[in-house]
Amino acid sequence: MKVEIITIGDEILIGQIVDTNSAWISKELNKAGFEVERITSIHDDEKQITETITQSLLRVDVVLITGGIGPTNDDITKNTLCKLFNSTLVFDEYTFKQIEKLLADRPLALNELTKTQAMVPDKATIITNTVGTAPITWFDVDNNKVVVSMPGVPFEMKKVMSEEIIPRLKKKYKPNSIIHKTVLVSGYPESALAIKIAEWERNLPKIIKLAYLPQFGIVKLRLSAVVDCDYNTIVNEIDIEIDKLKTLLGNSIVSDEDISLEALIGKILASKLKTLSIAESCTGGDISKRITSISGSSRYFKGSVVAYDNSVKTNILDVNIEDLQTEGAVSESVVRQMAEGVRKLLNTDYAIATSGIAGPMGGTDDKPVGTIWIAVCSESECIAKKFHFKYERNVNIERTTQTALLMLLEVINQN
Amino acid sequence: MKVEIITIGDEILIGQIVDTNSAWISKELNKAGFEVERITSIHDDEKQITETITQSLLRVDVVLITGGIGPTNDDITKNTLCKLFNSTLVFDEYTFKQIEKLLADRPLALNELTKTQAMVPDKATIITNTVGTAPITWFDVDNNKVVVSMPGVPFEMKKVMSEEIIPRLKKKYKPNSIIHKTVLVSGYPESALAIKIAEWERNLPKIIKLAYLPQFGIVKLRLSAVVDCDYNTIVNEIDIEIDKLKTLLGNSIVSDEDISLEALIGKILASKLKTLSIAESCTGGDISKRITSISGSSRYFKGSVVAYDNSVKTNILDVNIEDLQTEGAVSESVVRQMAEGVRKLLNTDYAIATSGIAGPMGGTDDKPVGTIWIAVCSESECIAKKFHFKYERNVNIERTTQTALLMLLEVINQN
Repeated sequence: MKVEIITIGDEILIGQIVDTNSAWISKELNKAGFEVERITSIHDDEKQITETITQSLLRVDVVLITGGIGPTNDDITKNTLCKLFNSTLVFDEYTFKQIEKLLADRPLALNELTKTQAMVPDKATIITNTVGTAPITWFDVDNNKVVVSMPGVPFEMKKVMSEEIIPRLKKKYKPNSIIHKTVLVSGYPESALAIKIAEWERNLPKIIKLAYLPQFGIVKLRLSAVVDCDYNTIVNEIDIEIDKLKTLLGNSIVSDEDISLEALIGKILASKLKTLSIAESCTGGDISKRITSISGSSRYFKGSVVAYDNSVKTNILDVNIEDLQTEGAVSESVVRQMAEGVRKLLNTDYAIATSGIAGPMGGTDDKPVGTIWIAVCSESECIAKKFHFKYERNVNIERTTQTALLMLLEVINQN
Repeated sequence: MKVEIITIGDEILIGQIVDTNSAWISKELNKAGFEVERITSIHDDEKQITETITQSLLRVDVVLITGGIGPTNDDITKNTLCKLFNSTLVFDEYTFKQIEKLLADRPLALNELTKTQAMVPDKATIITNTVGTAPITWFDVDNNKVVVSMPGVPFEMKKVMSEEIIPRLKKKYKPNSIIHKTVLVSGYPESALAIKIAEWERNLPKIIKLAYLPQFGIVKLRLSAVVDCDYNTIVNEIDIEIDKLKTLLGNSIVSDEDISLEALIGKILASKLKTLSIAESCTGGDISKRITSISGSSRYFKGSVVAYDNSVKTNILDVNIEDLQTEGAVSESVVRQMAEGVRKLLNTDYAIATSGIAGPMGGTDDKPVGTIWIAVCSESECIAKKFHFKYERNVNIERTTQTALLMLLEVINQN
């Protein structure tokens, strides 16, 4: 059984929003054992919607659609589906009651337009949206196939996918198992890693598919297999291959789970009962945000000082005002003092500090845009390194954060 | 002239990465006057790649492809394009020199695999990738159509799109102008706004297309028109409609530019010469990150204290320890003291503070997950409000940040 995803909305095709729904849906379907064959983003256009759904149904069994079911005139998905599947819109009392309940404490929001959300296709199964006004419609079509129309609002879609759509799809189809295992390798460019493990890759069992996913500073190696029986045998085979890889790459494998750097750091800090603080200048809160995106981070993360203005560096982090004046904020001396300062101030085992010129303004001949200093300190050592990133502001910030987390990982793995 | 985008990579269809390239490409093409008809994401699969490109070429003039041109075995786009367009791979000395130059200071990265990146299709125009090893291939195909294959790495793709592909497309085709104007409306649910402006919407000139883009706390209204002549007349017509809308909605229109809240706040603070500081607990750096994502934010943003641990709240922000014990960290009293504390500490005109339970852990009967206090203070007033968000951790954080920025906007617009 295979799935296609169709995301509808002019805003996607003019680049006003990034379609994050498709990736989330694909990941969840994969976990449940369903393969996504294709993702298509199209306009709020009747002809395009009709043609795309019709073609998808020739290729796959399940078509999941997001978007275009709001109450305003530019939302045409519901009417288009009705035409396509010879259905008529009827008023659904139960759906209306749900909408009333949902909007009980928002008087402005319950009105003639939201009431139209209770008009539903007579030939579809209606699934209640408990967090939004647009109901979900499930069409059973010819050849045991299914078309589902969901809201484009991410948290509404996520809730109904997890609680309703995936359980119903599992019941209707018996999915194969899809096994993915991912290891994280640091310190190798993708091509050098490919050469290093070429023989191992050549000898991989045919059923195991290998993919390289290079990120900045990390290459993820993903081993995948689709299995209809012998699940445990295949898992075992994959584990054996990963063990061989570990022998080959040693400490360069920083994780045998597909987790983010911030989650990996969190696991290690929590297990060692160590704490972290951060002093951020050019990253402006980005490192803290990544660290605190992990539930339970309060166990090891005490806090940060975002020291954007120099007065914050001197008054709060106790950076020497003369060093700041002679060396400048973007210097080894200042970034070390920032790390030491925040470590003492918040009384933590480890500290990170960043200071740099993210751009596009603020560069000089001496310190061009992209010049960044990062320091990582523990009780026993303080390492500071200079980098020069050559990208736009937000990429420079992102890479500084990623590099700082990699430096911290190295330090906490040594201690 | 119309464009389709094809993004290639198993990692997209298993949800391991979000395809951000398509939105960026669409936005840039739109600015240049090109319309994107469809975005399709497919697997690293020869048959699927071949079929998808063939079908796209039936519909549109230009097909832009990203992904699948790395040096490892899972990258098959280049070979597939060669088969499709009857081309042969040949070694290109110039491309190789470029790769050598690029990797000059990374000895590990220049190896037999990266050398294969200099093998290029003989029937394509080769465009140098100045920031990565995979060259860009441009195929001129039948009927004056074009297929371009680019790297999937976002910053590599962005550089070559801006500097090479878009200029070449503009030269080859004479694009229509696409006009988009967007106004930001706060304080209305989407449906109530649609009712409020229904008559205005009905009377819009036919050439102007209206779209509602609801976000949390904000509805974006986008007015669009495709024009082949009379550019200024249409711009003028759109401006007249926006003026009518302003009369209708008054202060609810917070911006007549499509800019982010943080950019809007930045503009106002910079023009008023006012400064901002932030004390973040549950948002963990997210507000600071958004504020500092704006270039030039150092003019009005002094810094933040991410007070995750209670000791940071008391020791640095001067929150009363008894209040913290009796009321708890998630309370009106504490969040007000955090805002006042950081405003005094960093000596700013405005301050924001957040304290809440983002979840999924840490909730109690009294203060369930999603309970959030936000305070915004100026010299003359301090407003604190309680919210209850009902979503997953990262959405709760995101909504807290968005709400805090909306509260700040209201305060700075009043003062």
